[in-house]
Amino acid sequence: MCELLGMSANVPTDICFSWAGMMNRGGATGPHKDGWGIAFYEGRGIREFRDPAPSYTSEIARFVRNYPIKSETVISHIRQANVGNICLENTHPFIRELHGSYWCYAHNGQLQNFTELPLGQFRPVGTTDSEHAFCWLLQQIAGEVPTTASSAELGAVLHRCCRTLSDYGVFNMLLSNAQTLFVYCSTKLHWITRRAPFGKAQLQDNELTVNFAEHTTPTDVVSVIATEPLTTNETWTALAPGELIAFAAGEVVGRWPATRD
Amino acid sequence: MCELLGMSANVPTDICFSWAGMMNRGGATGPHKDGWGIAFYEGRGIREFRDPAPSYTSEIARFVRNYPIKSETVISHIRQANVGNICLENTHPFIRELHGSYWCYAHNGQLQNFTELPLGQFRPVGTTDSEHAFCWLLQQIAGEVPTTASSAELGAVLHRCCRTLSDYGVFNMLLSNAQTLFVYCSTKLHWITRRAPFGKAQLQDNELTVNFAEHTTPTDVVSVIATEPLTTNETWTALAPGELIAFAAGEVVGRWPATRD
Repeated sequence: MCELLGMSANVPTDICFSWAGMMNRGGATGPHKDGWGIAFYEGRGIREFRDPAPSYTSEIARFVRNYPIKSETVISHIRQANVGNICLENTHPFIRELHGSYWCYAHNGQLQNFTELPLGQFRPVGTTDSEHAFCWLLQQIAGEVPTTASSAELGAVLHRCCRTLSDYGVFNMLLSNAQTLFVYCSTKLHWITRRAPFGKAQLQDNELTVNFAEHTTPTDVVSVIATEPLTTNETWTALAPGELIAFAAGEVVGRWPATRD
Repeated sequence: MCELLGMSANVPTDICFSWAGMMNRGGATGPHKDGWGIAFYEGRGIREFRDPAPSYTSEIARFVRNYPIKSETVISHIRQANVGNICLENTHPFIRELHGSYWCYAHNGQLQNFTELPLGQFRPVGTTDSEHAFCWLLQQIAGEVPTTASSAELGAVLHRCCRTLSDYGVFNMLLSNAQTLFVYCSTKLHWITRRAPFGKAQLQDNELTVNFAEHTTPTDVVSVIATEPLTTNETWTALAPGELIAFAAGEVVGRWPATRD
């Protein structure tokens, strides 16, 4: 399997602290050593860093940990390969343009019979179940969601599509179009929103502690989403299986609970 | 205007030497201080580094100079803004997926009335003439070139499209689909192919010298394309205005000369 890390903030915020924990899980405190990637939105633009090498030993991952890139929305992934070789084109996150925005996506889980999902204009470059599902998902959005849709309209379509994908296996997902970060839980995802009064946090995966009060202003709001909680002294909330949450500017702006037939 | 740098090699090769010269032109030895980007193909995958900050002072550009990333095809650009603000989404190279491959593109020049070029499924995220032209170009390829086309068939369509684009203004371009690097010259581009016996080269933009014989094997073939020659003691060839050259695995594999009515 893999691990996911996402962030949504109301001011450009660096993710060095969380990434310092996450990158250790890629070969040191965790087995996810088959590549990694991280994408930072800055306005409508996006930049990414990725490597098929383990994040724990990657020079590029170390650079990302030490050089604060400030972003409103971040999507990151460390990989433990199941479907698809270990190579650059199979590293997450995957990025495509649709409706004049960059859509960025990362997936945790494994899908069976995923090649049954019909594709259109979006085609996978690599060989993972994850990228195939992403291409299918974008095709549904292209077909069903007008460019002027609100995040609520988009969320409703996404929730239905994610539920379809989770019929194929485990499907935990982060997806953003720069404006909104959508988080879908099939089995395991946790989140936390930090706001004033900010306190100290202790990473689970190394000895690093940060006092957020020293790095923030009283109006900052930052939500972090991760497969497993990254800190030991804060209360993270587990998403329910089947739940979709939309984050924008650090806040929860939409929730679609698990639905049952 | 801007400057372009491209590389095609028959073995994964780092571009640290050429980049050390190029990045100095982004704010030190040249005026191209409005952002930069570099993309490295590794097989079918691609990774990129970009920054709206000047390459001469960018921490990320310095990392790229010092950390050898080995690649078969590289496309890079340093920007001096004309159309479009200085921001991340307006930095080159631009990347889109088409036919299951990543297409990477950078442009030097300025186009007039570019919004006349009709767009389809590919939409610009930023506001540059360059990205608009890229979206138009991909639409022509999507419509006219089958997925199974040879690089010669692709080149013939590209040559016609690039000529159309150069009717709108200055259009010097690097474009790759991972297999082939296409280079179109509207006004100014130079190239060199290095092969055994390898010698020493002296950068024009700083005091760096390299002895390629120490970093290569006798079968290596590496072509470098740049707006202006990067070295002072080698013979670079100027592309003719209107000419398209295709490089693959370091070698010239196709040439389409300037055509006249």
